[in-house]
Amino acid sequence: MTATLYGIGVGPGDPDLITLKAQQRLQQCPVIAYPAPVGKNSLAYRIAAPYVPSQATHLRFDIPTVADTEALEAAYDLAAQNIAKHLESGNDVGCICEGDPMFYGSFIYLMQRLQLRFTIEIIPGVSSIMAGASVLQQPLTVHNQHLLIIPGTLPRDTLKQQLSSADVAVIMKVGRHFEKICQVLTEIRRFEHSHYIAYATMNQQHHCPLSMVKITQIPYFSLIYVCGTYDL
Amino acid sequence: MTATLYGIGVGPGDPDLITLKAQQRLQQCPVIAYPAPVGKNSLAYRIAAPYVPSQATHLRFDIPTVADTEALEAAYDLAAQNIAKHLESGNDVGCICEGDPMFYGSFIYLMQRLQLRFTIEIIPGVSSIMAGASVLQQPLTVHNQHLLIIPGTLPRDTLKQQLSSADVAVIMKVGRHFEKICQVLTEIRRFEHSHYIAYATMNQQHHCPLSMVKITQIPYFSLIYVCGTYDL
Repeated sequence: MTATLYGIGVGPGDPDLITLKAQQRLQQCPVIAYPAPVGKNSLAYRIAAPYVPSQATHLRFDIPTVADTEALEAAYDLAAQNIAKHLESGNDVGCICEGDPMFYGSFIYLMQRLQLRFTIEIIPGVSSIMAGASVLQQPLTVHNQHLLIIPGTLPRDTLKQQLSSADVAVIMKVGRHFEKICQVLTEIRRFEHSHYIAYATMNQQHHCPLSMVKITQIPYFSLIYVCGTYDL
Repeated sequence: MTATLYGIGVGPGDPDLITLKAQQRLQQCPVIAYPAPVGKNSLAYRIAAPYVPSQATHLRFDIPTVADTEALEAAYDLAAQNIAKHLESGNDVGCICEGDPMFYGSFIYLMQRLQLRFTIEIIPGVSSIMAGASVLQQPLTVHNQHLLIIPGTLPRDTLKQQLSSADVAVIMKVGRHFEKICQVLTEIRRFEHSHYIAYATMNQQHHCPLSMVKITQIPYFSLIYVCGTYDL
């Protein structure tokens, strides 16, 4: 028996921003796997919940939130083993991924562990990058502009060097790196024309010009858009 | 009466990769607008066609394929005027956008012309960038990697400079710039680990390692993935 592992992108947060194909796969798979931070609810599962049949077997896998490579490897090894058991029994497994599976997705680490033994199909999803731009009504790129997508977790010098030569940029994983990012953007004179958005398309969505951000606890799932100029 | 202009992302090509929200808006709007290259069929419309009600009013707008700024401006001016007439009559207009509306989308130019006069809502879509990565089963980004998205239409020096410092890159709008791009990637020693894909998720989909590309007529809608290294 050959079962398939599906990596199912469920989009940025609004359950209506799931694709028809993702919805179909969620309804078909007898086993639904999803990542969750240790001790917390799974955001990916929350987005997909309206489409998961009640009889589906749930396979939650805990992902340590600390940056401990050994603990992460062990968590993905265990998740892959549990998924493999179901696949070996002939049951398709749908693995839910927030946003898009291949874009900073935990599914990548499961795919690496299972792709030599099982058939894999990936359903792309709407990324938070595109969702945030839609909410802000802020064009990402036009004409010949290039776009840099960069994690705010990088060292200050790397951020400064990369952002300095970018036409347009989106900074991800902002969280506790907010102050550092704002300083870099000020130094390269791109602070004034930047926008902030948190939880794009979700109920808690919040956005404003970067210079107007008042909160002190910046969520991990927030983005900063460093805008280019454009016209036609 | 206040009508709304919807920018509706319909995804990369496979009609099943449209979102539920896009499908709903297509079914609700009495007027459906879409861009098409002069004298050719509209790819955006073809993707959305299964969801457009038969009674909807079609509003095709021709976009010149030549890089003539004046002709392009005139084309968007005319399209915006025609859309405005319907909005002024109180009819919502859904404007179909291939992929995502804010990512190199022609909707951006309509939005700029109409956003001060009308309510606008944008429905993000699955981008070809994410769709191609899903087809190739090639991770885009992991951990702290940054991603450069760059049009192949740029001058050789700009491409070389930008690609040299990118962890991972996706080159868009390849078409007749294929040779130049391959030369640049060879010079910076990233040719061997690159992948080529055309028409991702469409019937004509074709992909292979960049070094195996045999065709001489490279389509405009093709992408080159310049891969990073990753592990966990």
